[in-house]
Amino acid sequence: MKIHNFSAGPSILPQSVFDKAAKGVLNLDGSGLSILEISHRSKDFVEIHEKAKRLVKELLHVPDTHQILFLSGGASSQFFMTPLNCLPQNGKASYVDTGSWSSKAIKEARRYGEIDILASSKEAGYNYIPKGYTVPQDAVYLHLTSNNTIYGTQYHQFPDCTNPLVCDMSSDIFSRPVDVSRFGIIYAGAQKNMGPAGVTLVIVREDMLGKVERDIPSMLDYRIHIKGDSMYNTPPVFPIYVSMLTLEWLGEQGGVAAIEERNKEKAAILYKEIDRNPLFTGVAVDEDRSLMNVTFLVKDESMQAPFLEMCKNAGCDGVKGHRSVGGFRASIYNAMPKEGIETLVEVMQQFEKQKG
Amino acid sequence: MKIHNFSAGPSILPQSVFDKAAKGVLNLDGSGLSILEISHRSKDFVEIHEKAKRLVKELLHVPDTHQILFLSGGASSQFFMTPLNCLPQNGKASYVDTGSWSSKAIKEARRYGEIDILASSKEAGYNYIPKGYTVPQDAVYLHLTSNNTIYGTQYHQFPDCTNPLVCDMSSDIFSRPVDVSRFGIIYAGAQKNMGPAGVTLVIVREDMLGKVERDIPSMLDYRIHIKGDSMYNTPPVFPIYVSMLTLEWLGEQGGVAAIEERNKEKAAILYKEIDRNPLFTGVAVDEDRSLMNVTFLVKDESMQAPFLEMCKNAGCDGVKGHRSVGGFRASIYNAMPKEGIETLVEVMQQFEKQKG
Repeated sequence: MKIHNFSAGPSILPQSVFDKAAKGVLNLDGSGLSILEISHRSKDFVEIHEKAKRLVKELLHVPDTHQILFLSGGASSQFFMTPLNCLPQNGKASYVDTGSWSSKAIKEARRYGEIDILASSKEAGYNYIPKGYTVPQDAVYLHLTSNNTIYGTQYHQFPDCTNPLVCDMSSDIFSRPVDVSRFGIIYAGAQKNMGPAGVTLVIVREDMLGKVERDIPSMLDYRIHIKGDSMYNTPPVFPIYVSMLTLEWLGEQGGVAAIEERNKEKAAILYKEIDRNPLFTGVAVDEDRSLMNVTFLVKDESMQAPFLEMCKNAGCDGVKGHRSVGGFRASIYNAMPKEGIETLVEVMQQFEKQKG
Repeated sequence: MKIHNFSAGPSILPQSVFDKAAKGVLNLDGSGLSILEISHRSKDFVEIHEKAKRLVKELLHVPDTHQILFLSGGASSQFFMTPLNCLPQNGKASYVDTGSWSSKAIKEARRYGEIDILASSKEAGYNYIPKGYTVPQDAVYLHLTSNNTIYGTQYHQFPDCTNPLVCDMSSDIFSRPVDVSRFGIIYAGAQKNMGPAGVTLVIVREDMLGKVERDIPSMLDYRIHIKGDSMYNTPPVFPIYVSMLTLEWLGEQGGVAAIEERNKEKAAILYKEIDRNPLFTGVAVDEDRSLMNVTFLVKDESMQAPFLEMCKNAGCDGVKGHRSVGGFRASIYNAMPKEGIETLVEVMQQFEKQKG
């Protein structure tokens, strides 16, 4: 049975990437060596790393003002590394609280300066993206979480302000075009649209750096990683390799504008069924619905377990919602084919026939 | 042609591990999913993670006083994380300087307390392991680098003191038995004897923690990773998986005591040839010679390039020495078969016949 992987992350990647990655583990491009045993300073890996950077730059049209880094540690490390590197002790940064990850980013940032929470949708269970706030002129940056995996909300427009944006794009990077020039820092754990767990992409505008006076450990200093071209220490070789393969696949699909169209189409199929099917209801407010994580509830809670069982029997894996929201979550990242979503919709319709 | 991988790191792993890892990338244990796409909270990965921890505990006889963590970031992150977590602001720690990695550890530690350099072999190009120093009673710990990849030196006995040892074992962990109870912290980047680049093993005695007053970012706090069982954030899933496979292989080889015997035998073959062959000379002093990284020079420097060429033609890859030492370095980690070393010795003998 074909398994459709709806996991929120780590999550589905293209089958062709798995095929190429498996070959690379056995014999990288006919070198006679495994990607797992080659030096990060070897010609083969240096080329892979360069290609990965080039693909990021091309796919997102990263301007020359910005540097591209592949770091380890996950987006969680960026929660403190961004203020550590960019927020002066007597400076102020603005944050918008759109869920669990935003809250963690806020918590970690507090030790480095004044943190202004401009808006929060916490009281509504984070089911919407706050809008209409004013960003103070003197905020060094405005921090956002572009997509909220747990609640299924997403910014479809970034707030209008002159402050540089710092954005956790872990769960929707490479799913659509973004104007990188508006961002001081974009960071993203790889394990949704970019690659496997174990590497984090950081795109940083260089003039965000060098403005704090603290003594930063080498491994936490963006400038040291820029100087070392992400090779200050041994980078996570294999996660970078698989990210390169995934970005290559994305290029073959036509890039981020093309994938956005497919993502919109895919999400529309599922949201349409949620809205049509009398047994289900969506979690997020309509205008902020995520194209990546579709969250929905069954109106009669006793039907939760039977629906999950039916999903499982149809090969739909990872559909259970996060414990803080309950219900269901279908993560439909770039690599999820339309067929996966159609299968899930069929299950919902079958379920309606049985229980409705 | 069979390639013999003598790289210092990332470095050779067992062929059976590559075979299993490639299968896991395509279909993990018949689950229908790739190891690259499964959730770190999935039953499959939780089992892998538990097994990896259990293997570390069994292979090194880790006592119950110590916790086992798989973190991201490399050993370089531990250079500052160990003092950050363990060294009080007004406390003192002792360090021994045995090379480039020790020096970096010292540099990163200085910001957290008083750092006492008890001994250094820098003036001799780090070709020996200093001995005979006294560790101050009030040093919170004594920091060592157990094996020095660049210079080819290794502690064959750890210094006699009552202070807990903090040790960077990146390049010789799992190559021999160690008495873990003597260590407050052992840390090791995976990419030599344990697995691919992208994960770092930290073994920490719990009573080393909770004695500093600083405000530690969550991702840098060992206690948070202990509480979260290395799953506070998404761990580097694939590097942990391959580490588990490598440790499983090590168990099948008879464990660390058995592999130590083989490592001694392998190193002896190569050192014997270096000492016998009139064209070559060893770098490290005899008593401190590493069983992992064998460093040697050609007496006539003009013969360097021709020897490297001959190595390459025989499939001996990665033999070039580090730029700071020059000459040659054969890294012969656990997974290097005796045949690899025999091939290199044959090349040395052929070279002697041609040039001697």
